[in-house]
Amino acid sequence: MQIAMIDDKLVPAEELEPAHLDRGVYFGDGVYEVVRSYDGKIFALEEHLQRFANSLAAIEISAVDINEIRSRVQKAFDAAGIANAKIYFHITRGSAPRSHTWEPDLKPNFFLMVTGLPDNTEVKTKGIAVSTHPDWRWKRCDVKSLNLLPNVLARADADRKGCEEAIFVDEAGLITEGAASAFFAVMGRTLQTAPLSANILPSITRKFAIQAGKKIGLDIVEKSLTPPQARRANELFIAVTTNDIVPVVKFDGELIGDGKPGKHTKLLVQQFRTLV
Amino acid sequence: MQIAMIDDKLVPAEELEPAHLDRGVYFGDGVYEVVRSYDGKIFALEEHLQRFANSLAAIEISAVDINEIRSRVQKAFDAAGIANAKIYFHITRGSAPRSHTWEPDLKPNFFLMVTGLPDNTEVKTKGIAVSTHPDWRWKRCDVKSLNLLPNVLARADADRKGCEEAIFVDEAGLITEGAASAFFAVMGRTLQTAPLSANILPSITRKFAIQAGKKIGLDIVEKSLTPPQARRANELFIAVTTNDIVPVVKFDGELIGDGKPGKHTKLLVQQFRTLV
Repeated sequence: MQIAMIDDKLVPAEELEPAHLDRGVYFGDGVYEVVRSYDGKIFALEEHLQRFANSLAAIEISAVDINEIRSRVQKAFDAAGIANAKIYFHITRGSAPRSHTWEPDLKPNFFLMVTGLPDNTEVKTKGIAVSTHPDWRWKRCDVKSLNLLPNVLARADADRKGCEEAIFVDEAGLITEGAASAFFAVMGRTLQTAPLSANILPSITRKFAIQAGKKIGLDIVEKSLTPPQARRANELFIAVTTNDIVPVVKFDGELIGDGKPGKHTKLLVQQFRTLV
Repeated sequence: MQIAMIDDKLVPAEELEPAHLDRGVYFGDGVYEVVRSYDGKIFALEEHLQRFANSLAAIEISAVDINEIRSRVQKAFDAAGIANAKIYFHITRGSAPRSHTWEPDLKPNFFLMVTGLPDNTEVKTKGIAVSTHPDWRWKRCDVKSLNLLPNVLARADADRKGCEEAIFVDEAGLITEGAASAFFAVMGRTLQTAPLSANILPSITRKFAIQAGKKIGLDIVEKSLTPPQARRANELFIAVTTNDIVPVVKFDGELIGDGKPGKHTKLLVQQFRTLV
């Protein structure tokens, strides 16, 4: 007889809930998105849905109607009634007894959660500290997958160092991106960030940060930085859906500039506000 | 109000089952083991429990009593009453609203499943075909984590090519291991496999395969192979908990030797039987 066990309780296998057979938990076999709303309006939903479709295609989950996902996101957002909301959603390949391969008719599982965003005045005005961590992630970080254990471990390391974000450094000594953000440096009148590749998530906020950078007259350079270059930058910031532009004032324990959010970063924060 | 959605159904966040808040599904934030029994006796349980403890420590899950895990495994195995069973179990960091960082008092989730192993006479006597795939996995494959999406995708690719296992090749052009197995070549009187490193799972079956190799008089070489070297080998096989030694008779479409399981591989299969 097939038997399962949840914590210390035996359960006949046929009585298991689909959530216990989710390929999301066995393999991280799924992809996700995080969108946010500003004052009752979801920002850049189409861009996020397009990236979600790309992620689904990359991992060969095909039976998903993006129009239906859009409706669900809107329905849940409306039901929650939160003006400044974070909307997380994922799709996994489905629920089935554990096996690397899957049956073609497996029905994907959808999960979504709407929560209120905490006030971000402090991170915006004071900035955050970041620390570097080896980039242990898989080689397809352009796919927004549920395989996030290296991100979790890097964040735990940053947390222990009193930092709010971990910045990944690859084996070549180059900064790729943050554990949950894109990473930018301002040097003179140049705004620099790593170029998109298989190791970088095509961040939506990164795209808008670059737009905002152009608007305030910065030259954009898509070229990877090293940690010593980052430490010498005039200004640093991260770009992340939930908080858009967040100034970085400390990098591996060293103050950036005078340890306060830089003037261009502040202009970018303002500029971003006009976009949303 | 915090709202969740499961498929197309809205659910108040406070009514979510712990399984829907499992960090296993959000992040693959957990580790697992697979053990098997031969004729009513679990094989190498202590070795698997030791590796499980190592994996838990590597990802900083500390509140787990390995003695309790041993008891649970034995209890479920006894309840199932399956002589030749596969026992899968995992621990995730616990259930909590999604956040990269976690509260120190979070209670880990345990899940286990006992199933019967299918008859493996055919794979043992005919051997299997394998195909290579770029090793897209993270850089800590010595940890048996739930971040298995690259393994799933590689297996799907192998499946499309009519192969039973995918063999990973890293950026240096070296074979690391299979998507769910260790990989071995016999060349003359030498048994060769990749050395243990951060990119290789310390496979229990690999260890016993090496022991068995010594017993039948083979010289052991722990050195990575390239695909051309593998294609020219006299014999190939994979080592995997569920089926111990499985002959590989085709590699990327090319027959190995005469396309039948090699003589040393057959001796190793026999030798393994004496161990269990």
